[in-house]
Amino acid sequence: MSRVYNFSAGPAVLPEEVLKSAASEMLDYNGTGMSVMEMSHRSKTFEEIIISAEQDLRELMNIPDNYKVLFLQGGASQQFAMIPMNLMKNKCADYIITGQWAKKAAEEAEKYGKVNRIASSADKIFSYIPDCSDLPISENADYVYICENNTIYGTKFRELPNTKGKTLVSDVSSCFLSEPVDVTKYGVIYGGVQKNIGPAGVVIVIIREDLITEEVLPGTPTMLTYKTHADARSLYNTPPAYGIYICGKVFKWLKSIGGLEAVKERNEKKAQLLYDFLDKSRLFKGTVRKEDRSLMNVPFVTGDKDLDAKFIKEAKEAGLENLKGHRSVGGMRASIYNAMPYEGVQSLVSFMKKFEEENV
Amino acid sequence: MSRVYNFSAGPAVLPEEVLKSAASEMLDYNGTGMSVMEMSHRSKTFEEIIISAEQDLRELMNIPDNYKVLFLQGGASQQFAMIPMNLMKNKCADYIITGQWAKKAAEEAEKYGKVNRIASSADKIFSYIPDCSDLPISENADYVYICENNTIYGTKFRELPNTKGKTLVSDVSSCFLSEPVDVTKYGVIYGGVQKNIGPAGVVIVIIREDLITEEVLPGTPTMLTYKTHADARSLYNTPPAYGIYICGKVFKWLKSIGGLEAVKERNEKKAQLLYDFLDKSRLFKGTVRKEDRSLMNVPFVTGDKDLDAKFIKEAKEAGLENLKGHRSVGGMRASIYNAMPYEGVQSLVSFMKKFEEENV
Repeated sequence: MSRVYNFSAGPAVLPEEVLKSAASEMLDYNGTGMSVMEMSHRSKTFEEIIISAEQDLRELMNIPDNYKVLFLQGGASQQFAMIPMNLMKNKCADYIITGQWAKKAAEEAEKYGKVNRIASSADKIFSYIPDCSDLPISENADYVYICENNTIYGTKFRELPNTKGKTLVSDVSSCFLSEPVDVTKYGVIYGGVQKNIGPAGVVIVIIREDLITEEVLPGTPTMLTYKTHADARSLYNTPPAYGIYICGKVFKWLKSIGGLEAVKERNEKKAQLLYDFLDKSRLFKGTVRKEDRSLMNVPFVTGDKDLDAKFIKEAKEAGLENLKGHRSVGGMRASIYNAMPYEGVQSLVSFMKKFEEENV
Repeated sequence: MSRVYNFSAGPAVLPEEVLKSAASEMLDYNGTGMSVMEMSHRSKTFEEIIISAEQDLRELMNIPDNYKVLFLQGGASQQFAMIPMNLMKNKCADYIITGQWAKKAAEEAEKYGKVNRIASSADKIFSYIPDCSDLPISENADYVYICENNTIYGTKFRELPNTKGKTLVSDVSSCFLSEPVDVTKYGVIYGGVQKNIGPAGVVIVIIREDLITEEVLPGTPTMLTYKTHADARSLYNTPPAYGIYICGKVFKWLKSIGGLEAVKERNEKKAQLLYDFLDKSRLFKGTVRKEDRSLMNVPFVTGDKDLDAKFIKEAKEAGLENLKGHRSVGGMRASIYNAMPYEGVQSLVSFMKKFEEENV
């Protein structure tokens, strides 16, 4: 067995310790004589798994008691509908458009009410985060929506928008648990886990209790009502149990390496190594405005499509996988999530240096 | 490591071969240097996994070309809304109530149109399947809905209802792939996989193409529109990739043991062993009308609650797990899905004999 360095944007690299532990427990979890996949979600053993996953997440993110943590299904794409169906009491919301996912979220929300696109960085292929310090927030907006880290474009809100008192809803799929956050600044924080936390098929929603009500839009399915899952502690129906179990292992791993302060430091060190190289390279350059750069997703180009293709091919041969950029940006993208070791980024930068020498 | 015999109603026992193979591939799938959990759902490798899973399922069930196979999320509970949202053109549907799940499905459908409960076995705690040969099918019914195998009560439709030409929609969660079916008799066959096929978090929908349209009810989320997933071959957004991979392994296992004819034979042999014992036991008796007995879920009682509790406790000590019946029926329930070996049922029956001798 030989592992590669996997720079996939998601599903993405997981900690090797977590995978090893999952493999060793596959036929017999903790002396139960069965796999977590085979276990009733109403069993004591699984209850312990989900409760301890929630508890560890609460510790890691310092989640206040007046927020619920929900483990749901359907990915961010399902949240695009679930959020307006549950939150649009005035049938009005403000969206900040920093990429394809925010755009999709806004389009979906238009099924349910008035959507105001109060800022956008579409003019420069979403290569920056707009100034959000004094936006025309709608008077009756039920919430202000952002996609906090933009996987495709490699941008990140370094400062949260000034919502002028309105509820902030944030999709953190690609920066989940990558650094400490102040949960109290948000009404809803949510993300698919398949980038930074676990296997695809689990979406985690952290939601302030006062936003969880029975008054949802008419026709909202029971399964798309936050209250259903909040009341049942994510056990209204059979949850994606194995995925939650893996998430729980990742939470424990994050705690073991020092929590989110330590993780942030690791991530900054990794990102800096790559950005520093990009800033002085004669061949490669980053595509994002410096102050808006993501710690997680780093897009870069040579400016020559054929050379980009050559780079991606040769990198793959060297065990550096999934470096192709999204088709809307082109070039390359290195996703360097929590589980990507520093050595992976070192390896990438060494390879880039070598490639530069050979091709400039 | 010692495995138990796990009679859980779901999530439930999986084939040991499948779990072993998954464990061995956890850190490196097929020489890719990564886990299936870490793999882009747009990668060639994952594409092969999902395409071959679909292909194997089509072979196993002999699914005609004019049916789509969708791998979705949210479980049966989400289908309870998705079905009316997509199919209720006339805003009317007929439901046959054979247990809690059909009841819940009907209640959810009432959010979207008129629901006629055209038959029910509630009068005898759902211990039988009503005669469905000549029901008052509604003239403008968009479909007739059944739950084909009732996990809690241990009943199974041995004959499909006469829908008088209307589309049949069937929840097969707890009898999925347990015997051959004639797919052409259905408009929609769907089921959560966590009983007979794989880990919780995947629901498989087999749907006739003419039922997949853009004309869904207003306010139907994109993610709850069958057309979204049919057009994208279940890759509209990140699917529950690891779950689909395990399902694919189970499909291959089913093919390796001879397909659904052979599986049916195995299941009949297992069920017969248990039912024959129940029919002659002086202590235990089955709770279901004989002609409606399920091959998958076998509820039984002693008639004495304390003795039931004693049985469950001692069985657990003997490595026979999860035999407690659902609270609405009481007593015991042995779920003997495809992956339960004959030896497991033998073991259970021997234990029951011994317990009977000791306690009668």
